Amino acid sequence: MHHIVTPAGRAPPAISKPDMIQSELKERHGKIRVLMTRQGIDAALITSNVNLIYTCGRVVSGYLYLPLDAPAHLFLKRPDTMEGEHVTPIRKPEQLPGLLQACGLPLPKRMMLEGDELPFTTYNRLAACFPDTEVLPCGTQLVRQARSIKTAWEIEMFRHSAVAHAKAYARIPSVYKPGMTDRQLSIEIERLMRREGCLGIFRVFGQSMEIFMGSLLSGDNAATPSPYDFALGGKGCDPSLPGGADDTPLLPGQSLMVDYGGNFNGYLGDMSRVYSIGKLPRKAYDAHQTCLEVQTEIAATAKPGSVCEELYNKAIDIVTKAGWEDCFMGTVQKAKFIGHGIGLEINEAPVLAPRMKQTLEPGMVFALEPKIVLPGIGPVGIENSWAVTQEGLEKLTHCPEEIVELPA
Amino acid sequence: MHHIVTPAGRAPPAISKPDMIQSELKERHGKIRVLMTRQGIDAALITSNVNLIYTCGRVVSGYLYLPLDAPAHLFLKRPDTMEGEHVTPIRKPEQLPGLLQACGLPLPKRMMLEGDELPFTTYNRLAACFPDTEVLPCGTQLVRQARSIKTAWEIEMFRHSAVAHAKAYARIPSVYKPGMTDRQLSIEIERLMRREGCLGIFRVFGQSMEIFMGSLLSGDNAATPSPYDFALGGKGCDPSLPGGADDTPLLPGQSLMVDYGGNFNGYLGDMSRVYSIGKLPRKAYDAHQTCLEVQTEIAATAKPGSVCEELYNKAIDIVTKAGWEDCFMGTVQKAKFIGHGIGLEINEAPVLAPRMKQTLEPGMVFALEPKIVLPGIGPVGIENSWAVTQEGLEKLTHCPEEIVELPA
Repeated sequence: MHHIVTPAGRAPPAISKPDMIQSELKERHGKIRVLMTRQGIDAALITSNVNLIYTCGRVVSGYLYLPLDAPAHLFLKRPDTMEGEHVTPIRKPEQLPGLLQACGLPLPKRMMLEGDELPFTTYNRLAACFPDTEVLPCGTQLVRQARSIKTAWEIEMFRHSAVAHAKAYARIPSVYKPGMTDRQLSIEIERLMRREGCLGIFRVFGQSMEIFMGSLLSGDNAATPSPYDFALGGKGCDPSLPGGADDTPLLPGQSLMVDYGGNFNGYLGDMSRVYSIGKLPRKAYDAHQTCLEVQTEIAATAKPGSVCEELYNKAIDIVTKAGWEDCFMGTVQKAKFIGHGIGLEINEAPVLAPRMKQTLEPGMVFALEPKIVLPGIGPVGIENSWAVTQEGLEKLTHCPEEIVELPA
Repeated sequence: MHHIVTPAGRAPPAISKPDMIQSELKERHGKIRVLMTRQGIDAALITSNVNLIYTCGRVVSGYLYLPLDAPAHLFLKRPDTMEGEHVTPIRKPEQLPGLLQACGLPLPKRMMLEGDELPFTTYNRLAACFPDTEVLPCGTQLVRQARSIKTAWEIEMFRHSAVAHAKAYARIPSVYKPGMTDRQLSIEIERLMRREGCLGIFRVFGQSMEIFMGSLLSGDNAATPSPYDFALGGKGCDPSLPGGADDTPLLPGQSLMVDYGGNFNGYLGDMSRVYSIGKLPRKAYDAHQTCLEVQTEIAATAKPGSVCEELYNKAIDIVTKAGWEDCFMGTVQKAKFIGHGIGLEINEAPVLAPRMKQTLEPGMVFALEPKIVLPGIGPVGIENSWAVTQEGLEKLTHCPEEIVELPA
């Protein structure tokens, strides 16, 4: 167990600090190169924001060229004031082959691009710059595979974030006032998160899933089906963003679930906690306890080699025996997973879901979120972030897990 | 001039209201169909969030099929509870040809996809579902062209948003406390915006520009070059999001610029205002006045038919005559535009920039943002949202434009 406390709940020194960045980035480049080697790929061209954060330590506008046999080289559009040993200014991608040769780097034979991230026209323009190269779209999958096994430094980022995240949640009772709507309380929670250093940005892989910082779901709104693949839905306040709070009053006898993205340093920690307006019916506490049992059981048994679908099935078994299967992970439209990898994006590998044969490996970090939605009451359950260690799981998010009662 | 005031500064009835949605959506579909006809395209398949908001009135997970000669048809993945006359459930895109035929719709001959928005692999998967169709990537450009001319209803959305936006800004002096950092004040402004109904989400066309709600730039941080193509930069608080406030104290004699996205109903109104900590040196007020003159001059002369680059050149002329050209739109790294179309995304057509031969048309809506960054002081200038009418420009954002003094 780690209990690292920073004075103001702020993130540790940023990754761009020159003294640590080089070895950390080299380790990450090495992980990508191992996967490239297996596929006979001799260069990667990386240009999406999250993969640039991963490989360069920051967002830039430009292209990171990662060859197998030479140091990574950044071809940089902006900011136009950055300099470095392996940094070359560039205006447009058509300059790439000429600049590579000017840097003494041979043109690649088999190069991967981020095919699941780059828009179709952007991909084709980049590929056309390399007419004699075999260009493959597997860059997204391969870098995401590398990213799914976190370095020690990355796991430390999560530990620091979790401290700030827990501090913000601990103050939720202090900003709640009886008679608030779900939206009003969510605004105060957003402020608590921001004051602890949350950057606000919530990065999701894939174009279509959008959310603002996270969600607060109360009462029957938690069961409202959404277009997004998040664990629970919510109607939202506008059809242009149909998820989360829907501006209805928080009523006595209802539960609410707070589920915000903990992005304090680029890494999205994930944690949900449940609050009640006054007391809830007895069955809500029972259902909550069942979710805690799912968590306890998986935390006790999961370890490197555990198969994701077996962990999912274990959860379903516990929930079914307790009689909650109809309300588990939603009612009308149910989420078909109980956990998901987290990192620079909220949805990374592994996914704890049916038919997922992937096994846990040391360095994976995931959110486990068994949740039950009770008609007429609202959501209960738990979500924490976990790291896979050599021995089992390490809980990253430390914050009381019982339902917190707020005054009616 | 329009001065519509809603009781709580909240947005008007959402677009999904059945009584208004049908005619509004039909008008939009018609605009797209006119452009399709010119290019000999007989169907569009739309699946990005902003274009689904535009064509369906809300975000869904699925595909809007828009043929030239039959009503639009929504093939819907989620939410799985939505029903309608022209709505058919779908699980995967490979079902599309069969479902089209089951709906009595012939397969298209020339179909456009959103080539600048869909990831490479997603585009190819969709295109492969239609082996006998000529598939074109021009969907993004064509729908954006349609979107660049707003309907009367869309302009009304901007007017309503602007009222809420101005209410939030009017309260900024009440949340400011001497000694705050730029980040602390930005958190309070975010809360003001959210309390007036801002949805928070800030949508930008193109993958790489990211921002959280907007920016507060003070002192020399306003001149910090960023990787993004926003008007001004800022270092940001973390290398994973290098823009905006950098957590430094707001100091006496410095200016700060507040520039938040006014997304209260899906449409991103844009407005910047300047505040000073105590008094500023005389030249700051002079520079601010020059920016107001640029705005006055363009507001007085721009009308349908005005060429975008000529408006840009007019601004440069005024600024150069006043002696501010070195500090206009940044110092180290200068933005090469003074205005940009706004809509469901913050960067739409038209762009008021060098070499832009596009002319203004009635229904266009754009932000005009002449800004000057003064070393040692900070940013001054103005930004408002404007609609192009038959006669000229209509100001959408009404809020005092002088520099507001905050106590040192």
